[in-house]
Amino acid sequence: MTKNWKSIAEAKNAETKAKIPREWLIPLPPAEIRDVTGYASQFLTPAEIAITESTAHELVGKLAYGKYSSLEVTKAFCHRATIAHQLTNCLMEIFFDKAFKRAQELDDYFHEYKKISGPLHGLPVSLKDSVRIEGEQTTIGYVGWIGKNDTSESEALVTKILRNAGAVFYVKTSVPSGLMSGETVNNIVGYTWNPKNRLLSSGGSSGGEGALIAIRGSPMGVGSDLAGSIRIPAGATGIFGLKPSCGRLPYKNIAQSPNGQETVGGVVGPMTNSIADARLFVQTILEAEPWKHDPGVIELKWRPLEEDETREHAKRGLSFAVMKHNGEITPHPPILRALDIAAAKLRSQGHEVIEWTPPSHKIANSMLLEALSADGGAHTRRNHALSGEQVLPQIAASFSTTLGSLHEKSMTELWDLHVRKLTFQDAYQTYWNSTASLTKTGRPVDALILPWAPSASYPPEKFCYLGYSGFVNLLDYTASVVPVGVKVDKSIDRKAVGYEPVDALDKFVYESYDPEVYHGAPIGIQIVGRRLQEEKVLVISEVVEAALKA
Amino acid sequence: MTKNWKSIAEAKNAETKAKIPREWLIPLPPAEIRDVTGYASQFLTPAEIAITESTAHELVGKLAYGKYSSLEVTKAFCHRATIAHQLTNCLMEIFFDKAFKRAQELDDYFHEYKKISGPLHGLPVSLKDSVRIEGEQTTIGYVGWIGKNDTSESEALVTKILRNAGAVFYVKTSVPSGLMSGETVNNIVGYTWNPKNRLLSSGGSSGGEGALIAIRGSPMGVGSDLAGSIRIPAGATGIFGLKPSCGRLPYKNIAQSPNGQETVGGVVGPMTNSIADARLFVQTILEAEPWKHDPGVIELKWRPLEEDETREHAKRGLSFAVMKHNGEITPHPPILRALDIAAAKLRSQGHEVIEWTPPSHKIANSMLLEALSADGGAHTRRNHALSGEQVLPQIAASFSTTLGSLHEKSMTELWDLHVRKLTFQDAYQTYWNSTASLTKTGRPVDALILPWAPSASYPPEKFCYLGYSGFVNLLDYTASVVPVGVKVDKSIDRKAVGYEPVDALDKFVYESYDPEVYHGAPIGIQIVGRRLQEEKVLVISEVVEAALKA
Repeated sequence: MTKNWKSIAEAKNAETKAKIPREWLIPLPPAEIRDVTGYASQFLTPAEIAITESTAHELVGKLAYGKYSSLEVTKAFCHRATIAHQLTNCLMEIFFDKAFKRAQELDDYFHEYKKISGPLHGLPVSLKDSVRIEGEQTTIGYVGWIGKNDTSESEALVTKILRNAGAVFYVKTSVPSGLMSGETVNNIVGYTWNPKNRLLSSGGSSGGEGALIAIRGSPMGVGSDLAGSIRIPAGATGIFGLKPSCGRLPYKNIAQSPNGQETVGGVVGPMTNSIADARLFVQTILEAEPWKHDPGVIELKWRPLEEDETREHAKRGLSFAVMKHNGEITPHPPILRALDIAAAKLRSQGHEVIEWTPPSHKIANSMLLEALSADGGAHTRRNHALSGEQVLPQIAASFSTTLGSLHEKSMTELWDLHVRKLTFQDAYQTYWNSTASLTKTGRPVDALILPWAPSASYPPEKFCYLGYSGFVNLLDYTASVVPVGVKVDKSIDRKAVGYEPVDALDKFVYESYDPEVYHGAPIGIQIVGRRLQEEKVLVISEVVEAALKA
Repeated sequence: MTKNWKSIAEAKNAETKAKIPREWLIPLPPAEIRDVTGYASQFLTPAEIAITESTAHELVGKLAYGKYSSLEVTKAFCHRATIAHQLTNCLMEIFFDKAFKRAQELDDYFHEYKKISGPLHGLPVSLKDSVRIEGEQTTIGYVGWIGKNDTSESEALVTKILRNAGAVFYVKTSVPSGLMSGETVNNIVGYTWNPKNRLLSSGGSSGGEGALIAIRGSPMGVGSDLAGSIRIPAGATGIFGLKPSCGRLPYKNIAQSPNGQETVGGVVGPMTNSIADARLFVQTILEAEPWKHDPGVIELKWRPLEEDETREHAKRGLSFAVMKHNGEITPHPPILRALDIAAAKLRSQGHEVIEWTPPSHKIANSMLLEALSADGGAHTRRNHALSGEQVLPQIAASFSTTLGSLHEKSMTELWDLHVRKLTFQDAYQTYWNSTASLTKTGRPVDALILPWAPSASYPPEKFCYLGYSGFVNLLDYTASVVPVGVKVDKSIDRKAVGYEPVDALDKFVYESYDPEVYHGAPIGIQIVGRRLQEEKVLVISEVVEAALKA
């Protein structure tokens, strides 16, 4: 059995690699080159560089005016995606032939009817491996899932909507086995490295998307987030990511492991190089009225009035809360520096920044872990057992212990967890409301700013804590991660003198910080809005981005 | 212990009864008088009759113009409520002194400021026992819960909102032990009889509300619904009830047993004598922006455009589906007759009526029962054990077996149930969409009409099946129950000749029909809309009501 799973996984990986056209194979850079995002350019034509370094909304504009054909745009991204994969191991599935055919059809349509087929006409869009698409496989990293193609019936609704809007699909991207880690590693493609610092992880579980988009091998990617899986890779690779609330965007036919866990809900969301591109993604999905085809989606159209109101408020200054330490794990020095910079820049742009002393995030994080491991890890064991594959240390670590020794909750324990969850959600809402008495605007704070993780990323096997992202899922709030434009600098971001660990976990996280290793890694900050405030969080993300650039 | 719980329950019941002013005690009618809704009038003044037989929106109008004082309105309803209780056992808590004080304060406010304090200024509103209110007890029928007053912190949000809108609270109404039956019976107040036919149950779990409102002892009541608990008593007593979707109205601090069960969500909703009163209730709650104070509420204001669109469609004829038999349990003859009448009247008013052949309702009902009993009945046993009280047969029957022999689900089984639930929700939505190809309007059917139960009510211990109401909760759809204006008539509604039972349950339900016993019972029909379509369902309820009266 052991031999068998290895050969199956290797064959699958080799099959994917073989789909890279031979002329696109590249020599690998020396290990000293940590940031390989610029390395791709030497293998691309000026036209390919111009295309792949455009944003999605620039591209759909040029596609709509016939400045670019879909085929040339698709070919450019396919080319750059192969370079990304060779550098970082970020792809799970490659289907360029289908993409070229589809792009040609869209071009033919455009020439025949002199109009576009939808708001994303001709745009390549990458899919996280969990986002099912007809004719391709979904393994979410499980060797035992290899070999079964998705069908029209099993295809994700978000895939169908994007296709109807004119998207061209060409790759599915890597994830950790069962989506169960903040590092992307599985027994099929191996480890997905961070293209901005190849000593570090690209984050997870949407780590393949993070690496691919950071290297500009995709202009728009579909991620998913149950505990931070969009925000962690967005933060680690220095791109933008939006985690909506449950029920805003369709989650239908997205692979999840465990499937059926409803205590904390999973969501899909955009991962992009610009905030405007994320808005384009959300608007495109909502225009398709997904609530008519996914019983989990709430009938909530895109709300321009929410945007307008936030922009109006922004002109007179928004109220932010900043939380530098969540009371459980001490962020690394560069993270604290980035938050100080962000707070100072926001203040200098006329915004208000207050402190944040909410109900215990530690309790929230503990409840999240209880929810995800409520079956004692049975689903993960079962899916590993399908092939007999080894359990990677990152997957075992996600449950805070090795698989098999976890406690399965009784129904009474689960229902008690639900009562505690609701109590926490209520307390957090009450606290947020209470800040109205502290702000100059008289409103509760418009958004909370805090780290998306205590570090800029992780070296292999050092991911162990998702409390900075996961509490947002427990609350079902909306959140984004925005790059700060600051990088880890070993000459500035030295280890703090006199740091006293709170406990063993805090010590482990803090000691995993090595300025030499982290040097050059990008830093993002997390912006948290309340439930179903996607429009507001996108506007505020732009406000924060503008302040940081000012 | 046995003796103790009895004496505690008896003392509690006697204490409530003692709160009825002596001058309001009445001689009980002879058993032959089945319908006692008119019996109250002889004990009331003409003014009291005029007040209590007004609708809520008529009353708030007269209160707002000073035609009535809140005190006289409140006294009239308190008086009539005591008659209702003496006739049917429908109250759990009585607090008239507080109500009179509150009404006087509202009158004083009105006189001083020459304006109303809110949209329900001065209106008495009754609360189902599960709806917590400061200073009163919430037992939901458990003897072991007796003696603990709710506080401002534990008070339901819906109570706070209604109070802020000007409501006057005066009673809490009876429920089955733990809310776990379609008959209202508990060890504290005993059995709540149906005032329209005292051989039958008033339904449950909001059975006290049903009895009280049917006898016009309340102009507006707050019910709750997890498997039919608003619709069953509304149907049984011939009043109107609306079950919204989860997240539309605040469920915060509503007592539930089991607490923390989230596979199927509970909701609060209005029970009234008119559809317009239910709209007033929903609008009043939404105007208070409950999403700011209950993390479970979706930010969805009242949507007049949805109403307008439905009214426009109704002018040109709506498309209804009618389902006479859900494939599991055969409705009693009067129910089938009422549906035929409704379909014929709708057609004669220019509406379309098509058949309904959806995914299996039997499977939905089975999943609902699995969800409610997923802990093997542990919560019910635990709450009974608090006092040692006897488990009433209706409560044991709700779990299809006696308590204690139920299987507790493993987490894997629960998560599998969630996957099956989602699959069913998806299949049902797909089916509903597919009816667009069958209707003259080209739209999917606007609403589904079917029984709320296979019978007009139940004689004691005959309730055993909630499939006609519960599938709506599993789907999280919106539904109402509207009285048809038809009563069971023993001379017409004879047992069908040649009826062949599908199985033992079908036989049990069918054999429980005795035309002699059911004679005179009101009949309601259920109108089902899709998720979060409260505005649409209210308009369609009015369309159906108008057609039935035409």
